[in-house]
Amino acid sequence: MASVSHAEYPPELSPQEQQYLLSNLKDWSIAHGLAVRPAPSFVQPSQDPSGVLASTAPVTLFPSLFPRSCFEQGLGIQKAYNQLYAAIARDEAWLKSIVEELVGVDDFVAKLWQTHLEVKKDGYVQDLSLGLFRSDYMVHQDPSQAHPSCGLKQVEFNTIASSFGGLSAQVSALHKFLLTIDAYPKSTSSIIKDKALELSKSASSLAKGLAAAHKAYGTSRTGQPLCVLFVVQDPERNVFDQRHLEYALLESGVRSFRLPFGETLSHTQLDADRTLIYTPPNSPSTPYEVTTIYFRAGYSPDDYPKDEDWTARLQLERSRAIKCPSILTHLAGCKKVQQVLATPHSPHVKRFLPDDNVASRVLETFAPIYPLDDSEAGREARKLATDPSSATKYVLKPQREGGGNNVYRKAIPPFLQKLAETHWPAYILMEMIEPPRLQNAILRNGEIEKGGVICELGVYGVCLWRDGGEIVENWEAGYLLRTKGDQSEEGGVAAGFGAVDSCCLVG
Amino acid sequence: MASVSHAEYPPELSPQEQQYLLSNLKDWSIAHGLAVRPAPSFVQPSQDPSGVLASTAPVTLFPSLFPRSCFEQGLGIQKAYNQLYAAIARDEAWLKSIVEELVGVDDFVAKLWQTHLEVKKDGYVQDLSLGLFRSDYMVHQDPSQAHPSCGLKQVEFNTIASSFGGLSAQVSALHKFLLTIDAYPKSTSSIIKDKALELSKSASSLAKGLAAAHKAYGTSRTGQPLCVLFVVQDPERNVFDQRHLEYALLESGVRSFRLPFGETLSHTQLDADRTLIYTPPNSPSTPYEVTTIYFRAGYSPDDYPKDEDWTARLQLERSRAIKCPSILTHLAGCKKVQQVLATPHSPHVKRFLPDDNVASRVLETFAPIYPLDDSEAGREARKLATDPSSATKYVLKPQREGGGNNVYRKAIPPFLQKLAETHWPAYILMEMIEPPRLQNAILRNGEIEKGGVICELGVYGVCLWRDGGEIVENWEAGYLLRTKGDQSEEGGVAAGFGAVDSCCLVG
Repeated sequence: MASVSHAEYPPELSPQEQQYLLSNLKDWSIAHGLAVRPAPSFVQPSQDPSGVLASTAPVTLFPSLFPRSCFEQGLGIQKAYNQLYAAIARDEAWLKSIVEELVGVDDFVAKLWQTHLEVKKDGYVQDLSLGLFRSDYMVHQDPSQAHPSCGLKQVEFNTIASSFGGLSAQVSALHKFLLTIDAYPKSTSSIIKDKALELSKSASSLAKGLAAAHKAYGTSRTGQPLCVLFVVQDPERNVFDQRHLEYALLESGVRSFRLPFGETLSHTQLDADRTLIYTPPNSPSTPYEVTTIYFRAGYSPDDYPKDEDWTARLQLERSRAIKCPSILTHLAGCKKVQQVLATPHSPHVKRFLPDDNVASRVLETFAPIYPLDDSEAGREARKLATDPSSATKYVLKPQREGGGNNVYRKAIPPFLQKLAETHWPAYILMEMIEPPRLQNAILRNGEIEKGGVICELGVYGVCLWRDGGEIVENWEAGYLLRTKGDQSEEGGVAAGFGAVDSCCLVG
Repeated sequence: MASVSHAEYPPELSPQEQQYLLSNLKDWSIAHGLAVRPAPSFVQPSQDPSGVLASTAPVTLFPSLFPRSCFEQGLGIQKAYNQLYAAIARDEAWLKSIVEELVGVDDFVAKLWQTHLEVKKDGYVQDLSLGLFRSDYMVHQDPSQAHPSCGLKQVEFNTIASSFGGLSAQVSALHKFLLTIDAYPKSTSSIIKDKALELSKSASSLAKGLAAAHKAYGTSRTGQPLCVLFVVQDPERNVFDQRHLEYALLESGVRSFRLPFGETLSHTQLDADRTLIYTPPNSPSTPYEVTTIYFRAGYSPDDYPKDEDWTARLQLERSRAIKCPSILTHLAGCKKVQQVLATPHSPHVKRFLPDDNVASRVLETFAPIYPLDDSEAGREARKLATDPSSATKYVLKPQREGGGNNVYRKAIPPFLQKLAETHWPAYILMEMIEPPRLQNAILRNGEIEKGGVICELGVYGVCLWRDGGEIVENWEAGYLLRTKGDQSEEGGVAAGFGAVDSCCLVG
């Protein structure tokens, strides 16, 4: 069989090839916890009330092609990004100026800020902060250039609940396993080869970050045993992703507990010097002293249906435990920060990253983002957005976290025309990233979807720092490739989860 | 809380304790492949046609109490059992005498023997045989003694398709994990403790056995790459149990393939010197030379619905590949062999195990078994079986492999009365093993069953030998504890699978 070119990747499989690949993929995934709890549309909760069923997590059958230079760019720049966001999180005055622009449009950000101010009244008692970050990128090929070169452009930077670190390590191992057992046709052997497949160390590396914070907390002040607290949503379909971190943490000797965010006030309390005490409901006579709070919940307004949920966040933030992330670090991840950093000619990155060389490498990964206010950049943006010819290069996004849908390209001018100008500042204008259109096949809920996909590279970073400025730990912590069906004419990605994937490096 | 005694084990759990234990058990099991494909009664195949769902394998919530002396007895004697059954499998004349007594009552045994004779015509071309054995026991406490001591009594000896080696390693790790995270109440800490929980090394140790055979086969005769062939049932709900062995084997660099037994003739062939060639359907241009055939199918008459299935078994047996097991080894595991060995005053064990000390340790683990024929032992048995007072100590079992139900205790005399005496030799009479009645809780299909249980200890053994008598490899290979609800007044165990369990050693 002749070998396939990149344009023909992945190859068509014969029924026998597909059967072999799939049966191995389905068994390996369950045998190694590359799994999710099934969606209610797949298995009704009444069928499995105690929740013993699981299914293969949505995964790609093949590792997606990814330019090696872009992959190395993303991993190579992560420590600089960790440093940048640690610096932002330490700069309360700067963050305040950002938040002040949002309080009118974003209740959630306002409430987070207010919680910070509450804590500040009495003063923070923990000067260490932990970030388990994930910087998400797409490969961008500028279509207007005659010889388009490619580079990474940032989609967003996550400072809270960066997910899929557990599953990502497993999917990269899965694709390597499938290669080892010859599940990929020989015709692909010049592309899918051992040296091209990158294992992600994300699960162990993120767990190592939690362990580092746990250790940096120091000895117990109460005499109680120490633990890390995973603050989680309940129910959580993506529980195995988190569990892999817990198990890796336990292997390094660190106990952790899962606490549904909504039950925080029932099972935690602050003692007189604000040490956080967690009382396991199964063993109330053995309270634990919490060294580190790892938020896998609390990042969305939906996590705060009751007033008490804000009391809970306040209690956790007031505590002596190291927060992953603190509220200021959480706020550093809001879209507005990304916009301000990425506004053309912005001075901010250089403010936080004094080394010009480092700053310029970070700046290279920004796609231009404009406010739609009456600043100079805003006035420029209004021109770009209302002109049908220039608008085709942009996407309009609401500033509010998790709020509303994006408006793409030629739909922007008519959208703005219908919108009162006073509401325009609630949006930002971002240059479209033009990722290469690839092909792949995704297994999801037992069904295979084949076709065009776009890939998003997430690079994890661990950073532990002190308010005073000392960076205690800083490392790049593996990667995630997330792949979604390319279903929108507008270039937007399909809603929902997509699939976990791994990189097959080319070039 | 006061500590519980053995009589109160396992402890009652509070709802919070049970919730903590179960949520951890359910997540850990899926994250580590302690899983099965769901039963059709739980998930209808139409709901998940491609088979991506899995559920926690039926497991006990607690490790069951098991006397340390019995555990050590079982593990300590396994190498002698390996030696015994390797010797039986090598003694064709002796096996012939056994089989001749069965050909009238057991078509399956007759057919296996006939297949052996077919191969013998041209001569066997492989003098190595591999056994992955499992010797199953119950703890027996003689109720007639004033101070009952306990010892192991053998239930059966498996020479083919000894299952659960993969899951057993995982369940012992699960119970250890649950101990580590304090899922067992403090009141049990004097019982469930690290030193009492025995990890089973069965998965890696059985895989090591397959790897040893693979290596002993030697270099490729055809120039094709070498592989191990797992001959399996299809579909197989217990697939992860087998997959764990495959993955462990791959880690030692040995490729293996799964071949549904019914597809043997489509994908294998013998070349001129009876080298077995396997052609993977996904990659017909890359045939493999098979070093070792590992049967996880072919042990039941149900596996042979068509004449071609016997042709398939013949083809595999004729081949140069090392069989695990060979047909003679398969036959060595039939009930009749166990009966002949365990008939009181039988000379046979000493024939196969010349060392008196070794032989007597094996003999200690036999519960007396009698034929119901007109031999001297048979006449003794007929008296015991027809007398209602002595019959209460016995169970009547059909000689046929996998055939019919057992008849227990006082039901034996009326059963025999209705049966023509010419049919009596189709049964054997076995002294009942009186296992201690324990308590435990089993999670199966999402439901928890609590109550009385009985436990069966399986000890795995690996043995590689030559027809000439040389024992190339011989080791004990970990254990399985299988626990079933004690639901029968007659002392019989509930039908079906039971649950995988691990040992909490006491005494």
